[in-house]
Amino acid sequence: MTNVDTVESQSADMPGMFRRYRPSIIRGLRQGLASGHPQVYDILRYYMGWVDVDGNPCVSPEGKALRPTLCLFACEAAGGAPGMAMPAAVALEFIHNFSLIHDDIQDGDATRHHRPTVWAVWGVAKALVAGNVLRAVADMSLSGLLDKGLDPDRTLMVTEVLTEAYLEMIEGQYLDISFEGRPDIGMSEYLAMISRKTGALIRCSLNLGAVIASHDSRTIESFRECGRSLGYVFQIRDDVMGVWGDLELTGKPVGDIQRKKNSLPVVHAMSQAKGQDKDALVGIYEKQHLTDDDVATVLDVMERVDTRGFASRLAAEHGEQALEALSGVELAPEARREVEDLVDFLLVRDH
Amino acid sequence: MTNVDTVESQSADMPGMFRRYRPSIIRGLRQGLASGHPQVYDILRYYMGWVDVDGNPCVSPEGKALRPTLCLFACEAAGGAPGMAMPAAVALEFIHNFSLIHDDIQDGDATRHHRPTVWAVWGVAKALVAGNVLRAVADMSLSGLLDKGLDPDRTLMVTEVLTEAYLEMIEGQYLDISFEGRPDIGMSEYLAMISRKTGALIRCSLNLGAVIASHDSRTIESFRECGRSLGYVFQIRDDVMGVWGDLELTGKPVGDIQRKKNSLPVVHAMSQAKGQDKDALVGIYEKQHLTDDDVATVLDVMERVDTRGFASRLAAEHGEQALEALSGVELAPEARREVEDLVDFLLVRDH
Repeated sequence: MTNVDTVESQSADMPGMFRRYRPSIIRGLRQGLASGHPQVYDILRYYMGWVDVDGNPCVSPEGKALRPTLCLFACEAAGGAPGMAMPAAVALEFIHNFSLIHDDIQDGDATRHHRPTVWAVWGVAKALVAGNVLRAVADMSLSGLLDKGLDPDRTLMVTEVLTEAYLEMIEGQYLDISFEGRPDIGMSEYLAMISRKTGALIRCSLNLGAVIASHDSRTIESFRECGRSLGYVFQIRDDVMGVWGDLELTGKPVGDIQRKKNSLPVVHAMSQAKGQDKDALVGIYEKQHLTDDDVATVLDVMERVDTRGFASRLAAEHGEQALEALSGVELAPEARREVEDLVDFLLVRDH
Repeated sequence: MTNVDTVESQSADMPGMFRRYRPSIIRGLRQGLASGHPQVYDILRYYMGWVDVDGNPCVSPEGKALRPTLCLFACEAAGGAPGMAMPAAVALEFIHNFSLIHDDIQDGDATRHHRPTVWAVWGVAKALVAGNVLRAVADMSLSGLLDKGLDPDRTLMVTEVLTEAYLEMIEGQYLDISFEGRPDIGMSEYLAMISRKTGALIRCSLNLGAVIASHDSRTIESFRECGRSLGYVFQIRDDVMGVWGDLELTGKPVGDIQRKKNSLPVVHAMSQAKGQDKDALVGIYEKQHLTDDDVATVLDVMERVDTRGFASRLAAEHGEQALEALSGVELAPEARREVEDLVDFLLVRDH
């Protein structure tokens, strides 16, 4: 059912770890949603890109599966069998998708990755419930760790780490919503928000892989710290693509400036612009709808305060820190090279 | 902060188990939401009835806390210390309230228990996220079981039982939504839906109390079966109150017929009415909005097919089964009497 061409072309420029784990992750995800019979599971299969709105198998590009890939990689790099971490990897991807289904409702977005969102097809009530089902299916997946032979103590630890990350993610979503319409968000406030909203689950992905593979608390902490930095690299690049990226590739219908999204470039420009530039920005962000001229003005200001340069340097710093976090961990040379490839990819990815 | 008068007057006609556990449950719930600092926790405290929309302490009637009460009761009746089950009891109440916050969004209900609902005050986006936070706080609460000395195996079992019940509840919500606008719901289909939507968490409440107190699988299964029957008793009475109850007491702005809610009385009348009565019902339920005359006509038909009698008999049957389920379990005579009081209360409660 999976369009191998699409997957291949999408993952061609991706680091090896994505290609290596992809087939088993796809199998794991499909098994996770195979057994539920009520119609709501068809909605979820639609959202994962496996069936069309009528429930018929279809071909659509699937996501990168970043979080499960990080989880399996950390497990393998820390000395475990990657398959051992599959139930956690599946849970991470489902929680990520649950959050997107609800995000689309919150933001009123009718399209994601070139397809109608769940609420746009089935209405808010069903979308809300479908998201909640996916969240519960994610939790159910964790019991598979026991079946794979992980002891109850460790399984419980995985459950707790995931629950904490989940709570942090949701609190971050709340902060994000509460920033809306505020032109005075400081950079540190913004970074603290994305560290929760996006960072928590990415950090948790590496953390869980290490928890499943190793009992060494220093190793576990190192992967967690690496994940913390990767979360920043990922989201900063996401924010850059939201402003300067190719809409066709990012799958977004309009750019983030047009949407008045409070993302890093805007937070930076707002805090750095002076005089007329600052007045222009404030005036534009007080408007309900932005014209093309407004967008051009904002881009000009960003150019003058070197917003792209700032974002690149900040992302690169966090990339360095991600590598540094693992410097004290004994890793196979190939594994270390894979982390470097990963950072390089996250710094320049275009979708 | 709690209005003792309100609580007392509300619980005056309630079985002793509600009064006995109430103070410790209120403490447990408040502790569960004490530490979160972001504004979203104020929203949750508002929803629990502890603060007003501005976050100031206030006095409003709190719920019955049926699920935590059942959980602590089962734990004590099965030979455990009820305090041991408190983290699970708190989780159950939070999950119940999470589901109500999301339910209000789904149904577009702007009032519950005489207070504006979360989405009506803070908008859909924040209400959606606030519900998700409460769900995560519920999960976090379970780690308290380890602190109380429950072993990891048992704690993991509690987590799994709760997750399964949660998933079943959400699937039930999905079924409920998918019934909307369908005049052909059969009684067995309807009962299967409420067994999930309402029954799963009530069943789980007794089940978890027993799991925490006992290692005897027959005892655990008996409490679970008792909970299954109590779930029907509870929801059937809820449905009866939704049609014939005092709106002031139930806290609903309009009755269930007016709302065109697919509840047991309507499902019964639709399936039992013949000839002109049937035609009248079908005609009325095809309308967008019901007039007072329409409501009166529906009530007349229900009278003729003895819908109230049917509901009373069905609830009483399930009440009998709830008692029967525990007949093989060794219980203190007082505990058995308390279950009888509970069933009697659930059969006739007016709020």
